[in-house]
Amino acid sequence: MIVVMNPGAGEKEIKKITDKLKQMGYGVHLSTGENRTVIGVIGQRREEVAQNMEAMPEVEKVVFITKPFKLAGREFHGEDTVVRVGDISIGGPDLVIMAGPCAVESEEQLMQAAEAVKKAGASVLRAGAFKPRTSPYSFQGLELEGLHFLDEVRSKTGLLIITEVMDQYTVEEVAECADIIQVGARNMQNYFLLRELGKIRKPVLLKRGLSATIEEWLMAAEYILSGGNYDVILCERGIRTFEPYTRNTLDISAVPLIKQLSHLPIIVDPSHGTGLVGLVPAMSKAALAAGADGLMIEVHPNPQEALSDGPQSLTPAQFSSLIKELRGVALSVGKII
Amino acid sequence: MIVVMNPGAGEKEIKKITDKLKQMGYGVHLSTGENRTVIGVIGQRREEVAQNMEAMPEVEKVVFITKPFKLAGREFHGEDTVVRVGDISIGGPDLVIMAGPCAVESEEQLMQAAEAVKKAGASVLRAGAFKPRTSPYSFQGLELEGLHFLDEVRSKTGLLIITEVMDQYTVEEVAECADIIQVGARNMQNYFLLRELGKIRKPVLLKRGLSATIEEWLMAAEYILSGGNYDVILCERGIRTFEPYTRNTLDISAVPLIKQLSHLPIIVDPSHGTGLVGLVPAMSKAALAAGADGLMIEVHPNPQEALSDGPQSLTPAQFSSLIKELRGVALSVGKII
Amino acid sequence: MIVVMNPGAGEKEIKKITDKLKQMGYGVHLSTGENRTVIGVIGQRREEVAQNMEAMPEVEKVVFITKPFKLAGREFHGEDTVVRVGDISIGGPDLVIMAGPCAVESEEQLMQAAEAVKKAGASVLRAGAFKPRTSPYSFQGLELEGLHFLDEVRSKTGLLIITEVMDQYTVEEVAECADIIQVGARNMQNYFLLRELGKIRKPVLLKRGLSATIEEWLMAAEYILSGGNYDVILCERGIRTFEPYTRNTLDISAVPLIKQLSHLPIIVDPSHGTGLVGLVPAMSKAALAAGADGLMIEVHPNPQEALSDGPQSLTPAQFSSLIKELRGVALSVGKII
Amino acid sequence: MIVVMNPGAGEKEIKKITDKLKQMGYGVHLSTGENRTVIGVIGQRREEVAQNMEAMPEVEKVVFITKPFKLAGREFHGEDTVVRVGDISIGGPDLVIMAGPCAVESEEQLMQAAEAVKKAGASVLRAGAFKPRTSPYSFQGLELEGLHFLDEVRSKTGLLIITEVMDQYTVEEVAECADIIQVGARNMQNYFLLRELGKIRKPVLLKRGLSATIEEWLMAAEYILSGGNYDVILCERGIRTFEPYTRNTLDISAVPLIKQLSHLPIIVDPSHGTGLVGLVPAMSKAALAAGADGLMIEVHPNPQEALSDGPQSLTPAQFSSLIKELRGVALSVGKII
Repeated sequence: MIVVMNPGAGEKEIKKITDKLKQMGYGVHLSTGENRTVIGVIGQRREEVAQNMEAMPEVEKVVFITKPFKLAGREFHGEDTVVRVGDISIGGPDLVIMAGPCAVESEEQLMQAAEAVKKAGASVLRAGAFKPRTSPYSFQGLELEGLHFLDEVRSKTGLLIITEVMDQYTVEEVAECADIIQVGARNMQNYFLLRELGKIRKPVLLKRGLSATIEEWLMAAEYILSGGNYDVILCERGIRTFEPYTRNTLDISAVPLIKQLSHLPIIVDPSHGTGLVGLVPAMSKAALAAGADGLMIEVHPNPQEALSDGPQSLTPAQFSSLIKELRGVALSVGKII
Repeated sequence: MIVVMNPGAGEKEIKKITDKLKQMGYGVHLSTGENRTVIGVIGQRREEVAQNMEAMPEVEKVVFITKPFKLAGREFHGEDTVVRVGDISIGGPDLVIMAGPCAVESEEQLMQAAEAVKKAGASVLRAGAFKPRTSPYSFQGLELEGLHFLDEVRSKTGLLIITEVMDQYTVEEVAECADIIQVGARNMQNYFLLRELGKIRKPVLLKRGLSATIEEWLMAAEYILSGGNYDVILCERGIRTFEPYTRNTLDISAVPLIKQLSHLPIIVDPSHGTGLVGLVPAMSKAALAAGADGLMIEVHPNPQEALSDGPQSLTPAQFSSLIKELRGVALSVGKII
Repeated sequence: MIVVMNPGAGEKEIKKITDKLKQMGYGVHLSTGENRTVIGVIGQRREEVAQNMEAMPEVEKVVFITKPFKLAGREFHGEDTVVRVGDISIGGPDLVIMAGPCAVESEEQLMQAAEAVKKAGASVLRAGAFKPRTSPYSFQGLELEGLHFLDEVRSKTGLLIITEVMDQYTVEEVAECADIIQVGARNMQNYFLLRELGKIRKPVLLKRGLSATIEEWLMAAEYILSGGNYDVILCERGIRTFEPYTRNTLDISAVPLIKQLSHLPIIVDPSHGTGLVGLVPAMSKAALAAGADGLMIEVHPNPQEALSDGPQSLTPAQFSSLIKELRGVALSVGKII
Repeated sequence: MIVVMNPGAGEKEIKKITDKLKQMGYGVHLSTGENRTVIGVIGQRREEVAQNMEAMPEVEKVVFITKPFKLAGREFHGEDTVVRVGDISIGGPDLVIMAGPCAVESEEQLMQAAEAVKKAGASVLRAGAFKPRTSPYSFQGLELEGLHFLDEVRSKTGLLIITEVMDQYTVEEVAECADIIQVGARNMQNYFLLRELGKIRKPVLLKRGLSATIEEWLMAAEYILSGGNYDVILCERGIRTFEPYTRNTLDISAVPLIKQLSHLPIIVDPSHGTGLVGLVPAMSKAALAAGADGLMIEVHPNPQEALSDGPQSLTPAQFSSLIKELRGVALSVGKII
């Protein structure tokens, strides 16, 4: 942490700040430049201390030298984390394909989707039981009944299940029918939920918030890791920009950046990330080429009748042909589907 | 709703779409231009229907003509809504000033802040009991004990209390000590919480999400209104842009835009909106001049010791002098503090 | 400038970097923390040196302590700059109102607009002779003929003229008929033009680029100032965000932020900043309340026939009534219209 | 074009609008819904007409049905455009690799870079002679001398040359030494320059503006095409978002979106797009997998001594090894390097 003093700060002002820092147990190291004195602060990074310093009239600003995340950081854990669930591994050479409809609409719809994605090569079935929507007048999900259908389809097909949990109070219920618990973009900074997920021993897929920085995203992961649950998978799903043609702007650069900053696996959701079925194949390939550990893709037996996200859902036939194309791209970067 | 057909669509394709729309009970109205046929769809706007249409290969896109919100809209309710709480009215000629520290830190700190803001002219005390933070290693709020302190300070000072509720399960506890319940920016689209707040009879202050569009914000209000709670106050608190000097970019244009689109009162939070104490006075004036119904300002007895948000908190003296300056600006637009 | 070494950097790596810095004439100051060594670099800030450092594998990043602008900065020049042109002063207690149509369309249209805005209280007439447009199929301005009309209207009305220059080659021609030369948002980083404007002795109004940071904007001003032309007026005109209701998001917080960082006057253009005539009055008031030194407002004798920007142009009657309302707001912050 | 009337508009208001439209030669088609009357307008899309309509108090808004670009659109030209220059083709199965330093710094530096990138497999040398920079105190390019060096290196190495033109007045000089003329991001909407480039018969590479929408970008291409120059290559180079870790956010989704909307070839610049040499390899792979027709990559013989953009420049060795890795990715999507 570096405290930058105001240009006018003299000895007295500097002493006031260094005394305060020493009192809090920090080491200090003065460096006087042409226009400013800066104080190198030696000791643990703490946001509160930085804020207190910035609230002092003698201080211009505080600059952090180290990153705010620890357990999520590559410096803490040099090796790639591989999350094991059922008989698959996420984060190693085998790529994971998660696919299925946006929402559980009925047992039949779910079963059809499950069979189609399994046949095409997916190993994890995705589908939401809780579907809170922008409009209070839209379909809101089957909720507990939806979880029940997921459980049944799991038994029948042997697919692993990923589904979203909405708050800390339903973690247990979701954990019973899910092999991987999903935290949605809107919940990325629901810290009560994240803390609860830190206590369980099930993998968590943490979607990036709609306008979350990479650092905020890793800090959200840090919450789960700091609770003792190390099986966190990140999922890039598009950020909000000024572009109106696409639903979101899928940030593929998040993949190599996360690989550099963190040891956690990262997958990509090109369906929400673009909102357009016509862009899903190209963006799936881009994600794998950039080093993603897998994909999450929306597939619906009949997108034209879907209760949500029809325009971004592949048909089973489109999905099956995409998976074939992806195998070559995976191989070209040393991975296997 | 307007369905725009693909350029190549012929009679057969158009019939397929119009048949489908009629089957769903919609009236249709064909209009054939030079390059496209467009279908005017007469009947209630429904997002699902639009999505299903957009998932049809014959359709290029769907364009909405009406707005998605109803109860929140100016068309539905021409008069300004005035929210009455205790002996104050929000949304009329009297401006409301809510002030206080970011977080309840102790009974003493809260009492000091309350007395200072009351003396300066605030009628509502703000302070958070739950303080989930970006870093798991930071102070997280006093939680239930904080609510208790708020209740005590209310009795002692007669100030109205506004504090944040974090989820649908604690609405009751918060409602007991709060006169106005705040929904934070991160919870703006927590639809479970919004639905619960629709059922109670206490005013709700709904902060704008960090990168929420005006339409999404009004749709969030729609959730509360559609549950039967009409006492919703909007609060602009800054959006995320590319500018690094400020914490957020305070969107003052949201004030007249909301006044045009909706009948709900809107206040502005220049503290979170800028993150810089030096910008709070100017932005407070701008908000009132633009027509805001009030302000929410962070005031801390000692910002340099605050457990959160020190750099954006006014001292009691700064706050008191600001209120004096604001009276003239209020008068110049026909309002009173 | 602070050079942050990689976590693994040892004595040898540190020596390599400090030797290189000393060779370039910098003083260095080592500070060794728990996880990193940081090198305080004493001497002039230079972007190239920072980039070279960041390209070294031993270095994690470079952090700047001082700001990149000098002449534009408040530290360099503590007093507010007041730009004098004709018999008006911009940057002092008197607010400047610039108004007129987006484009010069004809002599008659310009004359009508000029008389209307003069009568209502504007002292500067704005109108563009060059109107490059997003579509090659739209009206592109009267160019030199437009400049000629401006000159005539200046003689007849006594209004001061502001009009836009498009490149360094036409500075002279524009300077002949303009009292203030405008640099448009798209040209904010046209450094050839800025350098040329540094050489003349006419006030320059520098609009903020569509997605320019405050720092980039001040650096653009720095180009003009460093050429020797100190009469620079900044103009906030909206930034690009994700909001579709408005053409841009008018960043009112730029006003107090510029006042803090710089000594240059700043005015606000609520017409381009919102794109909606219905928002112009409220945002004009907000701008003045926030401390702006004036306004630039689009006024057209007949917006429904305008060749550009009709939806954001006030009629003369609307403009006249707005000016009356603004006088009170100006007074409330100690200014005069 | 669809004109949406205000909710309160009656027969008289509708007649006023339809009369006005008919007078301008448009066909009209009324459609009366539950809340609004909408007028289908048959005839050529014109922005001015839409603006005039939106300036009428009886009209709520105007919605466009067709896209503003014509010649740049896939509807106008179904086949992919292939730009031929020297013995290479851009837009077909062979991918183009453009590489070289950010700026021409000296003849020696340029020659070293040229030989290195040629040996590694690039066919086009990139380097800027004009280097206007954010800071007036930074290196600004060798200008005409730089063009001269480029010409010499072209003769000696047989590489094709791409370099940037800054304005309409120097098009000829740049065209003499360049095989492809580059329009930089800041000039994407310099319509004077674009019009001039429409008149010549040399390929133009048009970089996307820093915060340009896809539509604005294609409209910029439309300017060149409408002048008669059909050899336009688009280049995605990153957009501005809120993320501070990277210089820009490289928008890979622009690649398939452009392929859908337009027939023009598109290449990707991962160097400016990320600003970080560590992300260039992954993003290069992603671009090719997404369907890009080539890459533009910064390579400097010695990034640690570069006068600009060192942190994002590959060394010759890094570049050479990247090209090897890219061959497999290209093959996996049916392309050849």
